[in-house]
Amino acid sequence: MKISVLGTGVVGQVISEKLIQLGNEVAIGTRNVQNTLEKTNKDNFGRPPFGEWHKFNKSVKLETYSGAAKFGSLIVNATNGVGSIEALSLAGSENLENKVLLDISNPLDFSRGIPPTLTICNTDSLGEQIQKAFPKTKVVKSLNTLNAYLMVNPSIISGDHNLFLSGNEKSAKEEVEQLLISFGWKKSNLIDLGDITTSRGTEMLLPIWLRLWGALGTPEFNFNIVRN
Amino acid sequence: MKISVLGTGVVGQVISEKLIQLGNEVAIGTRNVQNTLEKTNKDNFGRPPFGEWHKFNKSVKLETYSGAAKFGSLIVNATNGVGSIEALSLAGSENLENKVLLDISNPLDFSRGIPPTLTICNTDSLGEQIQKAFPKTKVVKSLNTLNAYLMVNPSIISGDHNLFLSGNEKSAKEEVEQLLISFGWKKSNLIDLGDITTSRGTEMLLPIWLRLWGALGTPEFNFNIVRN
Repeated sequence: MKISVLGTGVVGQVISEKLIQLGNEVAIGTRNVQNTLEKTNKDNFGRPPFGEWHKFNKSVKLETYSGAAKFGSLIVNATNGVGSIEALSLAGSENLENKVLLDISNPLDFSRGIPPTLTICNTDSLGEQIQKAFPKTKVVKSLNTLNAYLMVNPSIISGDHNLFLSGNEKSAKEEVEQLLISFGWKKSNLIDLGDITTSRGTEMLLPIWLRLWGALGTPEFNFNIVRN
Repeated sequence: MKISVLGTGVVGQVISEKLIQLGNEVAIGTRNVQNTLEKTNKDNFGRPPFGEWHKFNKSVKLETYSGAAKFGSLIVNATNGVGSIEALSLAGSENLENKVLLDISNPLDFSRGIPPTLTICNTDSLGEQIQKAFPKTKVVKSLNTLNAYLMVNPSIISGDHNLFLSGNEKSAKEEVEQLLISFGWKKSNLIDLGDITTSRGTEMLLPIWLRLWGALGTPEFNFNIVRN
């Protein structure tokens, strides 16, 4: 399958690697290809600069946002939440039309310090804003409630734990479910919360997620919804 | 132990019953004792009016907020979140001084319809507002992330699942932990998130909690934080 990943940070890299391993063709999109390749700083997670990563992942095509969006039949939004609407606008609404957009982004605002707050919440969500801005795209919010490495390898932690899906179209959620199952997620651990307004709930998980990281000393944990 | 429960709704009733069963002396506080006894409507959960409940729970003393607050050495805030600061003011800051206040309330606003939004979130929380308004009281936020029946009987659902605690004083959190353990919670399932600002995270769990109730068809579920 041809899949485009928008965003060259840790989430974009980890998702792209996994998609390639699974035999997909992958294009990763960025605002400015040259600038992205010329970065020399390690990122906030201590990972090497993008160019170093790309040397080991040459099969991932590096493109502009619009080049990448043209390429894929499914699009993954792994851009920084506060810049997502702009990145998707650069990708071009015509390149996103009638496609499923898996939105992993969270509207985290680090400008006030740590822990970050959300730029949108409670009466709206980034998932909803993206769906409104791109009405012909089938937005499915998922994977935004856990660490990148766990997203693509849920068995890093043993036992059952859950992923949430939000989106207006059942068929689009089913397409994303197939992708998630290819990543190793059990179908029975995927919870369809409902339409895209339910993104409010998963984006608003971030504040406790960040505090749990602090309390547990590791980002390698996930929520399991326990019931009889 | 003498414990006061402020709020005569389902949470206040269920907590009071459990506290009595465990051998505590309990006063339940309300704005106006006569009005509370004269209610004839079932509540939103289909429970009988307070007066009916009280006939079967005569050992729970019914008091005004201030009468109840004077009585207890530990206070439980089970009032409606949007009215909590006012209820605690009626209870009297002098009656809450140097006491632990277990705050179970959530700032849910039903005035815009269902699902409710939060009146405070993201950059503040009700837990913090209560701590600021009553600086000599030791506020511990907990139990606000699950159904009332589960609060006092965690084994309703099998397996491990977690409760979160937020508060500025370690000794106050330890006092609440003892109470929770008496309710049946395993110490290993209690997660101390940190100071009272971490209430933001647990109060912001409500939006997904409400959507999960919808998706799962039952409020009898809880979050388990899975890690290795």
